[in-house]
Amino acid sequence: MLKKYQQGNIYMGRLDYETDLLKELTAIVKDKNIKSGRINVIGAVKKATISFYDQQKKEYRDLTWVEEMEIVNCVGNISLRDGEAIIHAHITLGTSAGKLRGGHLAAGTIVFAAEYIIEEFIGEAFERGTDKVTGLPLWQE
Amino acid sequence: MLKKYQQGNIYMGRLDYETDLLKELTAIVKDKNIKSGRINVIGAVKKATISFYDQQKKEYRDLTWVEEMEIVNCVGNISLRDGEAIIHAHITLGTSAGKLRGGHLAAGTIVFAAEYIIEEFIGEAFERGTDKVTGLPLWQE
Amino acid sequence: MLKKYQQGNIYMGRLDYETDLLKELTAIVKDKNIKSGRINVIGAVKKATISFYDQQKKEYRDLTWVEEMEIVNCVGNISLRDGEAIIHAHITLGTSAGKLRGGHLAAGTIVFAAEYIIEEFIGEAFERGTDKVTGLPLWQE
Repeated sequence: MLKKYQQGNIYMGRLDYETDLLKELTAIVKDKNIKSGRINVIGAVKKATISFYDQQKKEYRDLTWVEEMEIVNCVGNISLRDGEAIIHAHITLGTSAGKLRGGHLAAGTIVFAAEYIIEEFIGEAFERGTDKVTGLPLWQE
Repeated sequence: MLKKYQQGNIYMGRLDYETDLLKELTAIVKDKNIKSGRINVIGAVKKATISFYDQQKKEYRDLTWVEEMEIVNCVGNISLRDGEAIIHAHITLGTSAGKLRGGHLAAGTIVFAAEYIIEEFIGEAFERGTDKVTGLPLWQE
Repeated sequence: MLKKYQQGNIYMGRLDYETDLLKELTAIVKDKNIKSGRINVIGAVKKATISFYDQQKKEYRDLTWVEEMEIVNCVGNISLRDGEAIIHAHITLGTSAGKLRGGHLAAGTIVFAAEYIIEEFIGEAFERGTDKVTGLPLWQE
């Protein structure tokens, strides 16, 4: 199951100090009316929250680290859920010792500095809906 | 040594439950007749296999983890080997404790859920051939 | 604070054995006269240096690993500093045991093999300048 897109506008910018990474990115995506696309971020955080999906119990479990960490990588896609733009992103975090941690990016991840690239893809947007096999909100046919 | 490309079509989609990540992506790339490009994936796996290249012995050694893990990042390029499209990709995996692992993506990595972006680059494709210095199948002049 | 861009040329290529990853990428970007864009690299290194930014002391501290490692991911953006193109990139490295490390890519990271994608974004370039809040060289209005 796939859809074909053309490259649209590309936005580069940075987020303000102490903003919420996922919420700010989502606000920009909605402001620019982007319904399909990709996001990339590098920077640093003061605190991070990820969600791990338990494939057996079919539920998310949150993990929070209150610690200075680099955003070594953060990559995600843009689609729709209930008609609203939603970012699904995964994040790689680095500690002061260069150790890496990460997972599914959740709200509650607080920016120290963050430089993003947001791309718009031109084409029919995917809409998320509950997938029976995995229990996840996956793209529907 | 570099080649210049223009952005072509972009495909977003998801892979089916319990498919082989590298094999499925390669099948899509071949089906769309893409010879140069990039892939990005986020999602989760039930099992993963990576290959580490020993720079001294000039050989790959496989590592397999049979465990629920997030695909925190998976990024790769598309070129040719023996005239056939080949994906060279590296993967970052996250455990339930948020620990990260990863390396060179090998066949045997089984999808729980996977959302991909595959981009076609328009231009002359690179062809891989054995590099004398490293022993790796690198892009040839 | 953001700026809008259009996709420009895309370059794929590989770096030579034992070159300096950050210096070589920067040389290519300058040679192609790219002032805004993105870089992606996968490959392997013989040695790597990252810099961790201490958010309290507002200073970078270097970490070096002299060891064969995979470049599991390396992603960055291109902008200007003092009118010269500069790459800000973060790197994820993988050991022979599949353990991951990484952070802010510094000079002194030596290539075993490296395949890159460099993209030019068409639009007004960001210029870096010292940010009062964080002490970092961030994009200015």
